[in-house]
Amino acid sequence: MRDFPEPRAVVVAAALELFQAQGFDQTSVEQIAKAAGVSRSTFFRQFGGKEDVVFADHEVLIEQLREFLAEGHDDPWGAVCAASEFVFAHFAHDPELARRRYQVVRQVPVLREREIITVFRYERLFDDYLRSALPGVDPLDAVGFAALVTAVHNHVLRQLLRGKKKIPVSTLQSALADVRRRYGVHQDATAGAPDDVVVAVFPRSMPVAEITRRLRAQLD
Amino acid sequence: MRDFPEPRAVVVAAALELFQAQGFDQTSVEQIAKAAGVSRSTFFRQFGGKEDVVFADHEVLIEQLREFLAEGHDDPWGAVCAASEFVFAHFAHDPELARRRYQVVRQVPVLREREIITVFRYERLFDDYLRSALPGVDPLDAVGFAALVTAVHNHVLRQLLRGKKKIPVSTLQSALADVRRRYGVHQDATAGAPDDVVVAVFPRSMPVAEITRRLRAQLD
Repeated sequence: MRDFPEPRAVVVAAALELFQAQGFDQTSVEQIAKAAGVSRSTFFRQFGGKEDVVFADHEVLIEQLREFLAEGHDDPWGAVCAASEFVFAHFAHDPELARRRYQVVRQVPVLREREIITVFRYERLFDDYLRSALPGVDPLDAVGFAALVTAVHNHVLRQLLRGKKKIPVSTLQSALADVRRRYGVHQDATAGAPDDVVVAVFPRSMPVAEITRRLRAQLD
Repeated sequence: MRDFPEPRAVVVAAALELFQAQGFDQTSVEQIAKAAGVSRSTFFRQFGGKEDVVFADHEVLIEQLREFLAEGHDDPWGAVCAASEFVFAHFAHDPELARRRYQVVRQVPVLREREIITVFRYERLFDDYLRSALPGVDPLDAVGFAALVTAVHNHVLRQLLRGKKKIPVSTLQSALADVRRRYGVHQDATAGAPDDVVVAVFPRSMPVAEITRRLRAQLD
């Protein structure tokens, strides 16, 4: 996928630093432009307004995903998961910036609402893509898979944004592999592994905690 | 669950008829109040504004679901599905009104955005409920199940809202049964057990926390 356009990234970074330090409402476009070393008119050429600075990455990402998905893929379910991993990798690349954005969004209701709407755009993109890439797919499966990938993605991304600790992409990958298994579209689905049902036999007297421990050991 | 408050319903019906006939932006609060046979001040006591009329049902429904879920349920996954069915039944009860609302929302971007945010509130309610009702549940399972139920619900509801044909609640029920199977928490997921040896058969996809919960219920 394409590289991220750098000139806007400088403005985004400067703006988020100001938003976090002095508040979103208290920060003017003039202050952002000055901090980023651009003119007011350059700012407005790059962004529609203050809000758009916060969601600039998403606008670019959604466009990149649209292009990526349009390339055509042998495994459309896998392509949706790859798209999710791409978004995660983008934010994990600069976690400090991502965390700053998250803190700002959390504190401003109008930004929080716009974020929910933005999340829905990813979900919709995945849904539309699956329906077009898989003619005859049950729309319910496309809708469900898109929603599940989006929800799982956001949950793992939130772990990265909330804490200080590093969340490796493998955390997301394993969550996405789980989503694929639930839809029976995991990569080894055609290998015919009899892993759908687990039969556990144990004495009634065994403590539930021990049963759980053993099951967990077996299932992992 | 509680009955729907009727006085507001009259205003909602009158407003939606006006919105559809002459447009949302072109309809004034005065016109709505007059059509509903209430005073302007009664309108503002019942609703914050024009937008709130469109989402009044959701406000009541979300509160009703919150109360219903708080009652405590043996099968929390099933309770979330029952909540979804309750919402569907509410709109299916008067499909003409629901379709009118859908047409109005589709045509006004600000209403469309608020709808997306409203949908997210249901999803969040289900997620929070599952996490509190199932201590130790993997948050990823709660997040995913909540997102999937919400997405599937909306898809089936949209079929009702878009077309002229009747969509029976059984369409939603079978879609929700499918969601439960994907999470291994369908009603017949656990088989009976003999005396001193317990044989537990469950789908590999069932969350360990759910296996524990069911085992505990069976063994106690």
